[in-house]
Amino acid sequence: MFKTIDWTGKNIRIIDQTRIPEKEVYLELETAGEVFEAIRKLRVRGAPAIGVAAAYGLYLGLRNRQFGTLEAFLAEAKKVAEYLAGARPTAVNLRWALQYTLDRIIAVSATPEELTSNILEIARSIQKDDETRCRKIGENGAERISEGMNILTHCNTGALATAGIGTALGVIYTAHHQNKKISVLVDETRPLLQGARLNMWELRQMNVPATLITDNMAAYAMQKGKVDLVIVGADRIAANGDVANKIGTYSLAVNCRHHGIPFYVAAPLSTFDFSISSGAEIDIEERDCREITHIWEKLPITVEGADCWNPAFDVTPGELITGIITEAGVAQPPYPETLKDFNHKINQNHKELYL
Amino acid sequence: MFKTIDWTGKNIRIIDQTRIPEKEVYLELETAGEVFEAIRKLRVRGAPAIGVAAAYGLYLGLRNRQFGTLEAFLAEAKKVAEYLAGARPTAVNLRWALQYTLDRIIAVSATPEELTSNILEIARSIQKDDETRCRKIGENGAERISEGMNILTHCNTGALATAGIGTALGVIYTAHHQNKKISVLVDETRPLLQGARLNMWELRQMNVPATLITDNMAAYAMQKGKVDLVIVGADRIAANGDVANKIGTYSLAVNCRHHGIPFYVAAPLSTFDFSISSGAEIDIEERDCREITHIWEKLPITVEGADCWNPAFDVTPGELITGIITEAGVAQPPYPETLKDFNHKINQNHKELYL
Repeated sequence: MFKTIDWTGKNIRIIDQTRIPEKEVYLELETAGEVFEAIRKLRVRGAPAIGVAAAYGLYLGLRNRQFGTLEAFLAEAKKVAEYLAGARPTAVNLRWALQYTLDRIIAVSATPEELTSNILEIARSIQKDDETRCRKIGENGAERISEGMNILTHCNTGALATAGIGTALGVIYTAHHQNKKISVLVDETRPLLQGARLNMWELRQMNVPATLITDNMAAYAMQKGKVDLVIVGADRIAANGDVANKIGTYSLAVNCRHHGIPFYVAAPLSTFDFSISSGAEIDIEERDCREITHIWEKLPITVEGADCWNPAFDVTPGELITGIITEAGVAQPPYPETLKDFNHKINQNHKELYL
Repeated sequence: MFKTIDWTGKNIRIIDQTRIPEKEVYLELETAGEVFEAIRKLRVRGAPAIGVAAAYGLYLGLRNRQFGTLEAFLAEAKKVAEYLAGARPTAVNLRWALQYTLDRIIAVSATPEELTSNILEIARSIQKDDETRCRKIGENGAERISEGMNILTHCNTGALATAGIGTALGVIYTAHHQNKKISVLVDETRPLLQGARLNMWELRQMNVPATLITDNMAAYAMQKGKVDLVIVGADRIAANGDVANKIGTYSLAVNCRHHGIPFYVAAPLSTFDFSISSGAEIDIEERDCREITHIWEKLPITVEGADCWNPAFDVTPGELITGIITEAGVAQPPYPETLKDFNHKINQNHKELYL
């Protein structure tokens, strides 16, 4: 089994996701600078996975160095954390993991050497925590998966995106391990083709039967009875259950409603943002035209200088979502009400890691 | 202005659509085999354009050959027609153009040589007829387009798909020439990217403002109020108004219904097939996996040997279609009833070409 991110005892070891599916190449990262580069170049990607990478990166940036005072050490720790957080400015987990680590050491009275080794322990616990949350999401979600189901998914939400088995794909793996004889229809996920590149590779490693389609085939697959359930991940979830996720998610949700097919979202509690009352408040990142006009910067597919619109995410209204699967259970409509209990769980949960 | 298909006086001349937008390359086709190859490889594509190509192809397959008897000639004509019709199974125009041509010569008492030159004349008249029909479709459709509308379209249905200005794109061109200040949102149209490649190229030639999106962004564009009307072409229309068209059409129609956006189909009367009562009877072509696993056979985008499903078309139920725009007027629901009148027009119309 591949391992997206791990600690060798000395360095971080990651699978280089820019080489998948062509090659399975592992890299050892020895410095904070190498971690920064790996995150920025998407060699390691997926919000939970880069959070783990950054926490280890903080350790790498501080080890084997001499600090005259505790203050000097803490100042440098903040500086390295700030540097790593800048590798991908929009990813929430990256900042969260670094801040969580700093919060844990700031209050402790110890030597810089002791705190440095504390940071390594915290990074390992963040990694383990993510594994545990993924496992619980998988278990909770698999209860919704019946024998022989054909499941459609969109974008990569698997082991490559986390330190564990993933979120939406984690649910699929768990059901597969329960011998439910499921099969997966994989949206290729334009424009960056995470489904074609990463999901097809992951599902093969996991021996789960998978069939690749273009995103625009999903509705027809539903009409033909080839889809029993759709499950996707989430980048941000508002208090009313509106979900921001990879562009294309909303179209799937509308089509699920039209065909009477269950539409599930799987995400850790850290994805909820109760500070926003609805998806209308979510700022949707619009990315460079070149992602649409070229395939991976390599192959132009349209006229030169074509105008384009490239929203990276869309917002699916909570009312179209059958259930939101988390490590703490599955929330179901009506959302503003049923999510209040989750809000309480989140407040408790963020204070302590699952271990 | 480019010319999709024309007769040089000796051979068929086509623009090689597999080279657009990179290059504007013209090919001369001298044999029925070359026509078959050009249709199958999508060098010439779009239901009306391949109908014209096939009619000329029938001539190319029979010219300069000796036939002992009229029966031998007619038997060979049927054989060549059958061969050409096999180049693409779903497109009804291909069979229609060939059958139309055969019907015209079967009843005539003449020599094989005379009938061969008749076939050439018939092919030329089918070409001219298509130009006229496109113009009328454009005029009828443009009445549904208001000032300043944002129009979304899918796959190429323009001058490249016909011998005239096109069907769905022809409506857009006509409204544009009426100075309605419209703009077009162009679905890239996976897997073969006809929207990105061909529509963006055509719309630039025609000076119509166009913005490229991936297919999975269409629903989000609708949610954001960026789409006032959707118009697409058709490959085959059943008696109840069910429409087979490029894969991805059905998803758009479902999303239009969800958002209350008008969804139009523009197609010549030859696209109707009153021999089938519903879309369930339409044979949907499933094409090679390589179209999905690679971009244009060049760039692999997934694991080697990936399973895939590649239906080239889907079927949109008539009940989701606001209107079917033809050269003889616009049909509106309820379809089995409103289309009866069109059936009558088709019966008359198929006997005589518009000229």
